[in-house]
Amino acid sequence: MGVKGEPERYRWTTLGQRRLLACPPWLEVWVERVRLPDGRVIDDFYRVQQPDYAMVVPTAADGCVLALWHYKLGAGRVHLSLPAGYLAPGDGPLEAAQRELLEETGYEAEHWRHLGSFCVDGNRGCGQAHFYLASGLRAVQEPDSGDHEEMELEFMLPEMLRQHLAAGRVGTLAAAAAIGLGLDALGG
Amino acid sequence: MGVKGEPERYRWTTLGQRRLLACPPWLEVWVERVRLPDGRVIDDFYRVQQPDYAMVVPTAADGCVLALWHYKLGAGRVHLSLPAGYLAPGDGPLEAAQRELLEETGYEAEHWRHLGSFCVDGNRGCGQAHFYLASGLRAVQEPDSGDHEEMELEFMLPEMLRQHLAAGRVGTLAAAAAIGLGLDALGG
Repeated sequence: MGVKGEPERYRWTTLGQRRLLACPPWLEVWVERVRLPDGRVIDDFYRVQQPDYAMVVPTAADGCVLALWHYKLGAGRVHLSLPAGYLAPGDGPLEAAQRELLEETGYEAEHWRHLGSFCVDGNRGCGQAHFYLASGLRAVQEPDSGDHEEMELEFMLPEMLRQHLAAGRVGTLAAAAAIGLGLDALGG
Repeated sequence: MGVKGEPERYRWTTLGQRRLLACPPWLEVWVERVRLPDGRVIDDFYRVQQPDYAMVVPTAADGCVLALWHYKLGAGRVHLSLPAGYLAPGDGPLEAAQRELLEETGYEAEHWRHLGSFCVDGNRGCGQAHFYLASGLRAVQEPDSGDHEEMELEFMLPEMLRQHLAAGRVGTLAAAAAIGLGLDALGG
């Protein structure tokens, strides 16, 4: 750990938990009774369970990123994003990333680099988001996402991604994180 | 819009909605009946309402970022993050960012730059996350976050942030997005 203090000193203890809502396979809400390190007890700390998902930053040999535009109900608008999808039961994160890239874009990638895995909400949980940089792209089939959303694919230079981000055209935290992590990994 | 097609063509229509769970002020879960652009109707698309939050990338004159280590129950561990907090009722995002920086670190900042605002979950919603780059730091008081979490502050060079991120010590999507966006804005 890079923590200066003693990590265990900071740990919370769950004293009990009760499920409030189950909407399989998408969502469960739980309430937990937790004890803080200073001894205080919180009776109603809410937790949310959602499936994990994977998102891909696909990069072509010329440095362009294969992005996409689609409508997302959570954002309430068409926005700029990247290939992504929920892990299916039994999926590893990389498998899901590879499947979503293929289904949504029709491309396979030769090289895969893990950019990180993060819980979606530090308090509630909300599942894990897994990010990958994919390079060595090869078109192998027509896209067929099977998703609810129609999408339009667009290869764009990192500088264009950055401009769309600055102009507010990236609507979700996952896409923003992927672009931030991806641009940093690509060295700008 | 940067969308190549017609954005309105992609829009979903909400036909009805019903609240399934209310845990004020933290969480509401709704189920919506939605119509997709191709005419299909989904009877059970779940939405989650949570308060918006703001997160700050505070940068000192020597290029160091003021980061922090704390335990987050959603991540289940002590992790590297940045000053952040929920918007209070009536708060604007910038006000919340400025208050959280002051309360959690004891610092004020002279210059504020908006790095973006994003919905936390593209399907469920889960509130908006607002990100700011803050520079011109000045210590004005002792930190007193009022949060449940104890934290330890640490000034670190961007390269150290990047190393902690690569080593898996950043646990939440918000912190990963802030670091990615912040490193990119700082030019690496």
